[in-house]
Amino acid sequence: MPPVITDVHLTPILIADAPLLNVGGVHQPYTPRLIVEIETDSGATGLGETYGDHHYLATATELAPNLIGMPVTACHAIRRLGGSDTRMLADNPIAGGLRGTLTTDKVRLSVISAFEIAALDAAGRAIGLPVHALLGGKVRDRVDYSGYLFYKWAQHPVSDAPTDEWGEVLDPDGVVRLAESFSAHGGFRSFKLKGGVFPPEEEVAAITALAKAFPDYPLRLDPNGGWSLATATAVAESLTGVVEYLEDPTADVAGMAELHRRTGMPLATNMIVTAVDEIRPAFDADAVQVVLSDHHFWGGLHATRELAAVCHAYGKGVSMHSNTHLGISLAAMTHVAATVADLDYACDTHYPWQAEDVITERFAFTEGSIAVGDAPGLGIELDRDALDRLHNRWLAMPALRDRDDVAAMRAAESGYLPHISPKY
Amino acid sequence: MPPVITDVHLTPILIADAPLLNVGGVHQPYTPRLIVEIETDSGATGLGETYGDHHYLATATELAPNLIGMPVTACHAIRRLGGSDTRMLADNPIAGGLRGTLTTDKVRLSVISAFEIAALDAAGRAIGLPVHALLGGKVRDRVDYSGYLFYKWAQHPVSDAPTDEWGEVLDPDGVVRLAESFSAHGGFRSFKLKGGVFPPEEEVAAITALAKAFPDYPLRLDPNGGWSLATATAVAESLTGVVEYLEDPTADVAGMAELHRRTGMPLATNMIVTAVDEIRPAFDADAVQVVLSDHHFWGGLHATRELAAVCHAYGKGVSMHSNTHLGISLAAMTHVAATVADLDYACDTHYPWQAEDVITERFAFTEGSIAVGDAPGLGIELDRDALDRLHNRWLAMPALRDRDDVAAMRAAESGYLPHISPKY
Repeated sequence: MPPVITDVHLTPILIADAPLLNVGGVHQPYTPRLIVEIETDSGATGLGETYGDHHYLATATELAPNLIGMPVTACHAIRRLGGSDTRMLADNPIAGGLRGTLTTDKVRLSVISAFEIAALDAAGRAIGLPVHALLGGKVRDRVDYSGYLFYKWAQHPVSDAPTDEWGEVLDPDGVVRLAESFSAHGGFRSFKLKGGVFPPEEEVAAITALAKAFPDYPLRLDPNGGWSLATATAVAESLTGVVEYLEDPTADVAGMAELHRRTGMPLATNMIVTAVDEIRPAFDADAVQVVLSDHHFWGGLHATRELAAVCHAYGKGVSMHSNTHLGISLAAMTHVAATVADLDYACDTHYPWQAEDVITERFAFTEGSIAVGDAPGLGIELDRDALDRLHNRWLAMPALRDRDDVAAMRAAESGYLPHISPKY
Repeated sequence: MPPVITDVHLTPILIADAPLLNVGGVHQPYTPRLIVEIETDSGATGLGETYGDHHYLATATELAPNLIGMPVTACHAIRRLGGSDTRMLADNPIAGGLRGTLTTDKVRLSVISAFEIAALDAAGRAIGLPVHALLGGKVRDRVDYSGYLFYKWAQHPVSDAPTDEWGEVLDPDGVVRLAESFSAHGGFRSFKLKGGVFPPEEEVAAITALAKAFPDYPLRLDPNGGWSLATATAVAESLTGVVEYLEDPTADVAGMAELHRRTGMPLATNMIVTAVDEIRPAFDADAVQVVLSDHHFWGGLHATRELAAVCHAYGKGVSMHSNTHLGISLAAMTHVAATVADLDYACDTHYPWQAEDVITERFAFTEGSIAVGDAPGLGIELDRDALDRLHNRWLAMPALRDRDDVAAMRAAESGYLPHISPKY
């Protein structure tokens, strides 16, 4: 019989983040994550990681007791915990805005993802198998990630904020310099630029400069739905043959569908397809050609595999989205990505931006890829001192327990208001 | 590390079958199956079962050596063995006709299904987990099956043929008597009638009689694509509110779509959607409301789960198809069915028709359902004496090594020719 879950620990933390710019504002100096630990009657333990904002923490706190007594192999039963309430959240936080329309069920599934992954980690440790083997086995030994470039300030506009080594990035030259640094650090073989920050012609110039500096590298530009259809059409026409796809150029299914019809540009999304009931409307309209899965959004690793199966049946490409995350989630992404046969694009990851972690040995990128581990479970170990330190920060900084890119922007620009979409 | 496959044994067998009638003819006295055994370096062994006709045996013989050295958890890698050649088979055997258009890749995937299941069985035995736990865990403790009723002769029209206890079934009274026997034997709570045998009005009368004898039992009628659109329309109008669905009333996507549009009758299929590239055309046309998955067709248990995910995303029901099979496949069906959350209909199974088996303890139906086992692997044991006996029959009867319902019918009716679809 499989090990049974005997205890669950939820630890909210704040991790250092860089002043990365996006359509909604700028990253705060610290951003919340939630670390899930489970214990089992076999002695094996498991780790999971998800969003840490108060909605997620509250849902995790409510659902965690239900895990006690469940077998660690009961992934599908875990996914059903808490029912499926699809009401809109009363307040839609800004981090939620960047992941599309946020519902209580999306929050629930994001919490479930950490539960499922912790269960899979414990199961793998207990029986001596890597997580990928519990998902049907890897079909590749390395998973490719793209270098995720951001416009950014040199430092946060507040005191006592973390610093970073990447400098200011506010123009095409800065973007190319950042790509060169990423290339030197991790050997990334493709790049994504977070856009929606500057007027589109500046961002097109940055992509064009990247294409010149890194010929034949797959490139992407992602304004998080910040463009009007007219703007997006002009960008698509400028960048046809230069980018492999545009990511969420406009904010809704109708705009994406019309843009693709007009220009033929492949469009990727992690905003208009982030839950099962959003798949069919987007696919039927041909609004999306590549779905950027995110195991947090979809409810875990089995759910991610299921999304990939739907994409395969409908001739859609699949890759992976990333929000700010640590090594637990990178391990989980790598294990599930290794099992998806037709993963056609390098996955996104914020990981190089995170200087802090809660695992003992951080992952290193080689030629932009991560080796798929065969050690039991996720193949990582918790650094409890680091976890305690980051949790103490969470205790000490109540004002930062919800990610709020608008508030962070107001620290530099007191009257700042988020743009009503589309920004450009 | 997981156990590694060290040897593979393929054993073609002939199993006794009853003279069951369908649109293409009648079952032969014996029908071929292929039993797959794998050995591993851990000592754990695994069992799989699939079609045994010469196309399948040849493909299995070609692909089996590739399994040597593979981990038993490498399900997705096993699925890729042999590439994906979708050419049509030169000769389309009659058993293939009943499963839709047969291609070399469908034959390949049917062989792969037995390999994957044998690997999962060995993996489960080696690490002490049931197969359902290796698929993400069960969400129910019993799986419902429908009582699968056939028109049939009292005996085969040849000498030295096996006999059966079910008697002659050629009219509505016979169908009701058979259902009563099924009910007494296994407590089935829903019934499917294999149709396409008699003029549709007789089969409608049989269903009507069943509905009267078993009020509120879900009922189904399956003529294997044997009806014209006009005939199917008349049947659908007669049976609206009486059957839960019609199964493959017409033979193609256009006919099914038009029938559903005209009548609103839910339509199920195991003929027009039996491979990934057939999903989208049928769904886009709304030709199908329920897909009857068959793990042999789709390439195993992970592939079956993926099909269920596609059905879920597109609002289609899912259940399971059955062709003649033994206890190995019934165990596999039960394990995977237990993991599919929205399995909305009782699964089909021929199992009650099979008096012979290659496992030591045959499954028994209680209230039409099978308990989902928690024993390691599939939870079954090979009866090697039975396997040897059935293999010796295969050696002794070369003329029956391919299922041929037309040839069997000619034994009773020398000039018999299969009907050009539609039959009615």
